[in-house]
Amino acid sequence: MAAEKKFMFERAAFVGVGLIGSSLARAMREEGLAKTIIGYDADTDVLARAKAIGVVDGGAGSLAEAIKGADLVVLSTPVVATAALLPEVAEKADGGALIIDVGSVKGAVAKAAAAVSPRVHIVPCHPVSGTEQSGPEAGFATLFRDRWCILTPLDRDTPEYKAAVEKAAALWTAVGSRVEFMDATHHDLALAVTSHLPHLIAFTLVGAADDVQTVAEAEVVKYSAGGFRDFTRIAASDPVMWRDVFLTNREAVLEVLGRFTEELALLQRAIRWGDGDALAKAFTRGRSLRRAIVAAGQETAAPNFGRDKKE
Amino acid sequence: MAAEKKFMFERAAFVGVGLIGSSLARAMREEGLAKTIIGYDADTDVLARAKAIGVVDGGAGSLAEAIKGADLVVLSTPVVATAALLPEVAEKADGGALIIDVGSVKGAVAKAAAAVSPRVHIVPCHPVSGTEQSGPEAGFATLFRDRWCILTPLDRDTPEYKAAVEKAAALWTAVGSRVEFMDATHHDLALAVTSHLPHLIAFTLVGAADDVQTVAEAEVVKYSAGGFRDFTRIAASDPVMWRDVFLTNREAVLEVLGRFTEELALLQRAIRWGDGDALAKAFTRGRSLRRAIVAAGQETAAPNFGRDKKE
Repeated sequence: MAAEKKFMFERAAFVGVGLIGSSLARAMREEGLAKTIIGYDADTDVLARAKAIGVVDGGAGSLAEAIKGADLVVLSTPVVATAALLPEVAEKADGGALIIDVGSVKGAVAKAAAAVSPRVHIVPCHPVSGTEQSGPEAGFATLFRDRWCILTPLDRDTPEYKAAVEKAAALWTAVGSRVEFMDATHHDLALAVTSHLPHLIAFTLVGAADDVQTVAEAEVVKYSAGGFRDFTRIAASDPVMWRDVFLTNREAVLEVLGRFTEELALLQRAIRWGDGDALAKAFTRGRSLRRAIVAAGQETAAPNFGRDKKE
Repeated sequence: MAAEKKFMFERAAFVGVGLIGSSLARAMREEGLAKTIIGYDADTDVLARAKAIGVVDGGAGSLAEAIKGADLVVLSTPVVATAALLPEVAEKADGGALIIDVGSVKGAVAKAAAAVSPRVHIVPCHPVSGTEQSGPEAGFATLFRDRWCILTPLDRDTPEYKAAVEKAAALWTAVGSRVEFMDATHHDLALAVTSHLPHLIAFTLVGAADDVQTVAEAEVVKYSAGGFRDFTRIAASDPVMWRDVFLTNREAVLEVLGRFTEELALLQRAIRWGDGDALAKAFTRGRSLRRAIVAAGQETAAPNFGRDKKE
């Protein structure tokens, strides 16, 4: 008798099948990590599309139906929804199930998780990857490859919880991520710097351009290759996901935003008074940081992100 | 007797053979637009490198030597240098020569050009294209293809000057650009929105990240895929070129910067007071603008600029 294939999970339930959920579902299918993948989405149209393109094996009509019998529940919803859903998930999921989320803010998830019963094992996760697109069609299996996934385990010192954390780490490793452990508070500050503030600034710049009535929108579009177009990529990211990030990571974002506005005031002053030395000095810092990011495999070395063909 | 090939220019002199100068020289060579291409650079090492890789047919030991006998002079230098060089170029170039520049600010060039003798024809040009890299090795012939080149002709109503403007437009068209005419003042405001402010903001964000001592630089690098890395591309641009942009386009930059900081203050307030509706509303503007930029052929439609492989 041939040995049956051993899956990491018998039944994986995805709550939310947008860009991140559908990407993880695809990656798990490609790697053979779950025997069955069930999807649920508050938006029935999104769920129908995920089923139609085969991202999930089946769709559930309710959250309870989705997570019943699941040994893995992935909460791939915006952060506010994740925190709100956790009590019901913790109550209705099978005892001992592994519950992970994928949100960009971890303090709010940790707080919600700390308040529920430890009969399920909640491991907050943040895969630092994504694109500016949304929906199940936008997902792809290699999204997490060579990107960091940060785990911020709860303060639970049981062998069962430790095993659950190890299983979550193994899942992310299996889909190509590099796993890092971190305190939730430190995560939220670090990501405020590397992700939340950049998005806020990009949204602001696009909004400010939208308001400049003396420069027609057609000109903003035509001459966007001068730099503006770079900002429109992340400013095209999902508005609800980002609303939730700023609602749940307020303190850290306001802190790093303060540093940004101080730096901006210095440069504004240098421009007003024609201080070329101060400007040139400030402008030299970007190259070394970019080189480091390229060297770390987090960015392409090709000029213009490789957008222009060198024929 | 076979007809000799007719070149658009007999002798093109490039003053400055960095990214833009060397790219235009390459494109002109590929298209057979000049019989001879001579280079000059205040940095003798840069000139030697341009000669070594064959970007120019020959290098000149001085500005005067470079432009003597040239029917085209390309000033591909930072804007402050361009404005400073124009009087000498106008005096020493052959009568009737076409002089173009490639700077990102046009008011300062127009002002310098208006003050010199009309014995040469100065046509200020701005190819809205480039990369974050510098130097003759970074150039490539297709850099200008499908990008806009804005011409801001001087207020000179002679048939000779009009012919010179037409010739400049024909040159940019021949290397693949789409040509647009504009008033220098309007150019400087439009580009402050689409290029100068985005660069200032990117430089600021990178500087602010550099200053955050609680988040180690290693973390900024590791988790840069969350958004930060997008900003490092344009923050890696040439510091001297950008210093000159802000020194010469002060009023327009301070004006659009004021609009940016007003928008940022609104979003900051929405974050502080947890106004999710205001945030979500502000965040919805990016998608339509990005779609328009993609539709205009100024941006790739691929997610993440096509950086991630969908294997």
